[in-house]
Amino acid sequence: MSEHETIPIVGGTGALGFGLALRFAAAGRPVAIGSRDTGRAEEAAGRVREQVPEAEVEGLENTEAATRGPIVFLAVPFRAQSENLTNLKSALVEGQVLVDATVPLAAAVSGKATRLLGVPQGSAAQQAQEMVPDGVTVVSALHTVSAASLSKLATPLDEDVLVAGDSKDAKRRVAGLIALLDGLRPVDAGKLEVARLIEGLTPLLISVNIRHKAHAGVKLTGLPEDLWP
Amino acid sequence: MSEHETIPIVGGTGALGFGLALRFAAAGRPVAIGSRDTGRAEEAAGRVREQVPEAEVEGLENTEAATRGPIVFLAVPFRAQSENLTNLKSALVEGQVLVDATVPLAAAVSGKATRLLGVPQGSAAQQAQEMVPDGVTVVSALHTVSAASLSKLATPLDEDVLVAGDSKDAKRRVAGLIALLDGLRPVDAGKLEVARLIEGLTPLLISVNIRHKAHAGVKLTGLPEDLWP
Repeated sequence: MSEHETIPIVGGTGALGFGLALRFAAAGRPVAIGSRDTGRAEEAAGRVREQVPEAEVEGLENTEAATRGPIVFLAVPFRAQSENLTNLKSALVEGQVLVDATVPLAAAVSGKATRLLGVPQGSAAQQAQEMVPDGVTVVSALHTVSAASLSKLATPLDEDVLVAGDSKDAKRRVAGLIALLDGLRPVDAGKLEVARLIEGLTPLLISVNIRHKAHAGVKLTGLPEDLWP
Repeated sequence: MSEHETIPIVGGTGALGFGLALRFAAAGRPVAIGSRDTGRAEEAAGRVREQVPEAEVEGLENTEAATRGPIVFLAVPFRAQSENLTNLKSALVEGQVLVDATVPLAAAVSGKATRLLGVPQGSAAQQAQEMVPDGVTVVSALHTVSAASLSKLATPLDEDVLVAGDSKDAKRRVAGLIALLDGLRPVDAGKLEVARLIEGLTPLLISVNIRHKAHAGVKLTGLPEDLWP
């Protein structure tokens, strides 16, 4: 058994969630892949083990997965975010951190993936903060890393992950996990309300990708060496 | 006299506009600095000449400056954008391109510079397209380059400029000018409506800058070599 905390990933059978599970497993961290369907979660765990034989990974129903570690990743499409958060109300407990990677693409309502929906709370991350139980802290992150690239261990990553949240401590802990993944640099982008602007990067990158047949990522220039002093 | 077209910069005495004037002059291009006040425009032209003695630069009233070349840069604060566009209605003519760099920061209405205002047309660039005379094409660009860095010729630049617009030809011509500035890489980000997402990068970078005491810029990773085939 690893001495490390397990990393639960709600929506771990989706493209982004699976990529995260795979990369965290490759970094030697135990992972709990969550899905609505336990069978699909187990199948995804099997696919992680195929690529990372030493992986400590299990497949569970989402709410069960969410109990397995202190920092829970939520990687679901926007159209399923609210439903997932409702289900998680009975699972999440005070002190946990929820890392929200949801992007409110207009594609959620049969619009374009290059357009961002307005969210009443300001952003998907703020909707998450409104819906989690008291004492659970939301951190917004991981909107711009290509799921396709994450899911191919052989593809080197070299980009930034913008992290937003109202708790500096929670942001720092999430940044610590992201920094485990080779080639990803977490950058503190500010308070949770800034998530609105970060979520807008995804449809922007999708628009760039369409034009240039690429999997573009974001890197900020001009930052100091030590970003988490 | 240069064989090159003059580059008019409306709002050329402001931080961004002056930085652009200085860099274009240093790149050997003739520049027309526009300002509401001709005296201030002439004073800014003098400051360009101090740093670039061979500069071909003149200071003019904004609407006069806008007649001096085919691609006009608009570098004014959002609170002055509509007024400037109204004034430009009598100056701009069919066939000209207007490069809009306006960012609708909440600071325009005494809010925070880390927040983006909603603009009825979708973005400041789309407001510009609505207000220019028929036959004038708006291209959105230059939201993320630090005015402070632009204004110091000794500061090397190394970042991308996201360019959005509905005319491929106009985007390509604007990209050609941006590429004259050492260290800036123009990237086609899509149609003009994507300006809404690009304009959001500015308050995001301001939030990052506040945290890290930096002048951050943006670079996209994973793009092909030849961006303007």
